[in-house]
Amino acid sequence: MFEAAELGLHVTKEEYKSKVPKLRVRLLHLQERLKNAPFPVLILINGADGAGKGEVVNILHEWMDPRFLLTYGFGPLTKDESQRPPFWRFWRALPPQGRIGIFFGSWYTRPIIKRAYGEIADEEFDVALQRIKSQEKTLVDDGMLLIKFWFHLSKKDQKKSLKNLKKDPENSWRVSKLDFKHLKMYDLFRGIDENALRVTSTGEAPWTIVEAVDRRYQCLTVGNLIAEQLEKRLEAWEAAKAAKVAQKEKGGLKDAGAEEPSRKSAKKIEAGKKHITILDKLDLTRTLTPKEYKQSQNTLQGKLNRLYRKAKKKGVASILIFEGWDAGGKGGAIRRITGALDSRDYRVVPIAAPTDEERAHQYLWRFWRHLPDQGHITIFDRSWYGRVMVERVEGYAREEEWARAYAEINDFEEQLAEHGYALNKFFLHISSEEQLRRFEERQKTPWKHFKITEEDWRNREKWDLYEKAVNELIERTSTEYAPWTLVEADSKEYARTKVLETFYNTLKQKVRKT
Amino acid sequence: MFEAAELGLHVTKEEYKSKVPKLRVRLLHLQERLKNAPFPVLILINGADGAGKGEVVNILHEWMDPRFLLTYGFGPLTKDESQRPPFWRFWRALPPQGRIGIFFGSWYTRPIIKRAYGEIADEEFDVALQRIKSQEKTLVDDGMLLIKFWFHLSKKDQKKSLKNLKKDPENSWRVSKLDFKHLKMYDLFRGIDENALRVTSTGEAPWTIVEAVDRRYQCLTVGNLIAEQLEKRLEAWEAAKAAKVAQKEKGGLKDAGAEEPSRKSAKKIEAGKKHITILDKLDLTRTLTPKEYKQSQNTLQGKLNRLYRKAKKKGVASILIFEGWDAGGKGGAIRRITGALDSRDYRVVPIAAPTDEERAHQYLWRFWRHLPDQGHITIFDRSWYGRVMVERVEGYAREEEWARAYAEINDFEEQLAEHGYALNKFFLHISSEEQLRRFEERQKTPWKHFKITEEDWRNREKWDLYEKAVNELIERTSTEYAPWTLVEADSKEYARTKVLETFYNTLKQKVRKT
Repeated sequence: MFEAAELGLHVTKEEYKSKVPKLRVRLLHLQERLKNAPFPVLILINGADGAGKGEVVNILHEWMDPRFLLTYGFGPLTKDESQRPPFWRFWRALPPQGRIGIFFGSWYTRPIIKRAYGEIADEEFDVALQRIKSQEKTLVDDGMLLIKFWFHLSKKDQKKSLKNLKKDPENSWRVSKLDFKHLKMYDLFRGIDENALRVTSTGEAPWTIVEAVDRRYQCLTVGNLIAEQLEKRLEAWEAAKAAKVAQKEKGGLKDAGAEEPSRKSAKKIEAGKKHITILDKLDLTRTLTPKEYKQSQNTLQGKLNRLYRKAKKKGVASILIFEGWDAGGKGGAIRRITGALDSRDYRVVPIAAPTDEERAHQYLWRFWRHLPDQGHITIFDRSWYGRVMVERVEGYAREEEWARAYAEINDFEEQLAEHGYALNKFFLHISSEEQLRRFEERQKTPWKHFKITEEDWRNREKWDLYEKAVNELIERTSTEYAPWTLVEADSKEYARTKVLETFYNTLKQKVRKT
Repeated sequence: MFEAAELGLHVTKEEYKSKVPKLRVRLLHLQERLKNAPFPVLILINGADGAGKGEVVNILHEWMDPRFLLTYGFGPLTKDESQRPPFWRFWRALPPQGRIGIFFGSWYTRPIIKRAYGEIADEEFDVALQRIKSQEKTLVDDGMLLIKFWFHLSKKDQKKSLKNLKKDPENSWRVSKLDFKHLKMYDLFRGIDENALRVTSTGEAPWTIVEAVDRRYQCLTVGNLIAEQLEKRLEAWEAAKAAKVAQKEKGGLKDAGAEEPSRKSAKKIEAGKKHITILDKLDLTRTLTPKEYKQSQNTLQGKLNRLYRKAKKKGVASILIFEGWDAGGKGGAIRRITGALDSRDYRVVPIAAPTDEERAHQYLWRFWRHLPDQGHITIFDRSWYGRVMVERVEGYAREEEWARAYAEINDFEEQLAEHGYALNKFFLHISSEEQLRRFEERQKTPWKHFKITEEDWRNREKWDLYEKAVNELIERTSTEYAPWTLVEADSKEYARTKVLETFYNTLKQKVRKT
């Protein structure tokens, strides 16, 4: 695989001088067009030591408008990073729409190094590569243009490159002992690299291997490839936009619905027959007497408090998400949990409309932001499931978007589980009649008034649509590592107790295993 | 001072029951009105152990709409936090406009505890309190409604409260050994607390001391005070808005200028005479021969690389900011520095238009976000000085806003210096003629085209206004702990060398002292 990048290709000084000006202009214009495009560009720079990664990145900064280039280098994990899933540091650094990000070293670096040092076996290495593939798919599906460069040197050339740098007094600082150590491991690395590249060179995110002997050749190749890819993508986007406009003009206003496939699909759900769903099987008559309730609350809160402090000492962090019908009692259930916790140890994150920064990223980005560090607890009041509920039903997400979200969510939660979070997903289910009762009570009670809006009533009319969406999401995202807890919530007392108890049990298991 | 909160005030169950519903409705309506207001609310909850801080926060969550309450508890410093100035953690947690934040424990907690344990002397404690005062002023001046509660217990009552909790099997977990240790230090703490409250009870951000014996009294007092303060502030804002509209209608379009006092002030600067400024005294003829330049660049980059790696080992972090005229050569100077660094160790932060999250906070918020941790380097391409340059000249900031910014900036930079950052502020100065030459060159050179816009030409027409603004900011923000380096930049070679050299020297001094 790497042989094709050992051909000794080079570019003369004259050729370079004549080609660079045009390339620069082209790149700058493309950057300008990109600014308003609804997708980000991410360039991964990987490859051998001494292969000029730093120099190429510097050249790109010179050629392009650096104000819209976001370059991140990834060194050893910081403490903060080591307390989160491996992809956390990368999600934080992702470029927003209209921008170009450059990752210097990337999600490939650590798995490759760990494999080379024998810290992980082939099997785990393969798992890591599969995870990378699905992460890249998630980003590319969302529209990202992902360009992956691998700078290659033959063993001989790498040796030469490092030695040359070493003996140049002005550049010797660019070479470290570790570089020479890795040179000795050349064959080992080469095999691992090849494997990694083979597995992760996909149709949407292929690798480009660039020979890294002649710096002029290397820079021109990288620059040209970026320009080509970006141009292709921009043209596709602009063509699609133009086609839409043309269609609109042609079809006039009456055909406006054609632009909203998700609305159609919403109607499609509506048209279906009423099936018996998982939710229907819940026994909503379950309840507790006031005395049972009071006792169990106090006992459970005390037990939970002792347990979570033990968890904190062991470094176990928890993530709780609350979903459910409007007026299902999420807020009350959350307060019963936080009542048992020290406010310094948890955060409640209410999920409302995204900010513009959030909107400019893949939809999971805003949740990655809030993952707790060691020993802490994050409670999401509504969550990433909005994608397959409200966004689906209301048509905020296109069908292909919400349809692939199940897999994206499962992958995300698998990462959370693997990292060791105690993960709890609660769905608070009430009957349609109970919701009506609560809505009416909210209308009547002055301080509950704020909790009921026109939108709630409108959503209520779509009960069947939501029910189907909920049923499907529970079926598709109830995994072994992240099962749903369906909570019978017609009785608030019963629901709150079940939530407390469930969290207590999940956390206990996790603490025992840690 | 605390005696007034030892009166044994209490509220009967009946009174409480009759008053709470109205208070809840009032608070909810106020929250609703706040949503569109251009200011945030921050509530600080401080006071004795066992004084019910957690319970009051829980009640507030029950009474108000929790989706718009952002509560943060502050525990021991995380590693990430300990690597930044003390206020970093609080800036990160500040509520945006239209929202209410609750800080459970606050910037008062650590200084008070440190003083009580004798880790700092009276003098340092006073410095900490002054710092708090100026931080609070910065926030309040920006529009924040800051409400500070201190929950007080007499020694006897605190003892009783802790003992009662301790012996209740369901609540005993709420009390720790540390609480009893602090009880023994009661008199010491009381003296320190009184001092802190006296010094920091200012007109804009006064303390409210609340007796914490009777929980009903306490909750009602807190809730009522929040409602009153918020209502007063909202009314003032709404009245001002109405007055503006009325004035507009009365004055018609021709008087629109009256709304933009800063435009007027811009004109005021324009009207002034041309003074000799600090900038005029720079010798812009300084230059280097190509040979001198090449040599010094290579030597300096090598030296800087070795030095910054030493700094990294010692944990010294650096902040560099670049200001200067359009076409002054900031980008090139920055690249000469980053060329000597490993990309994993630095970040270049270009400052363009703020995002909506950034706009919803005090203007320094976006810079606090990017402070580097231990051993790292952040380079700001344009900076917080935008407030007193472009925002001033173009009228984006009102006069009272930019006029107070000098003090805010000095305070901010003092915190950076105290924390131990190697701080470098560069202003790249070129002559008006040189700028014209570069603009014209940019017009002609295809790949420099993107660097020149209509706006640059417009700004150029305001050269005198900018010169005055620059002159003033240099005079007012060149401090002992954060001096400006004025760079003669008509010769790019000279400028780049001076920048490299200056950063090298600042860092060297810092490393030597660490």
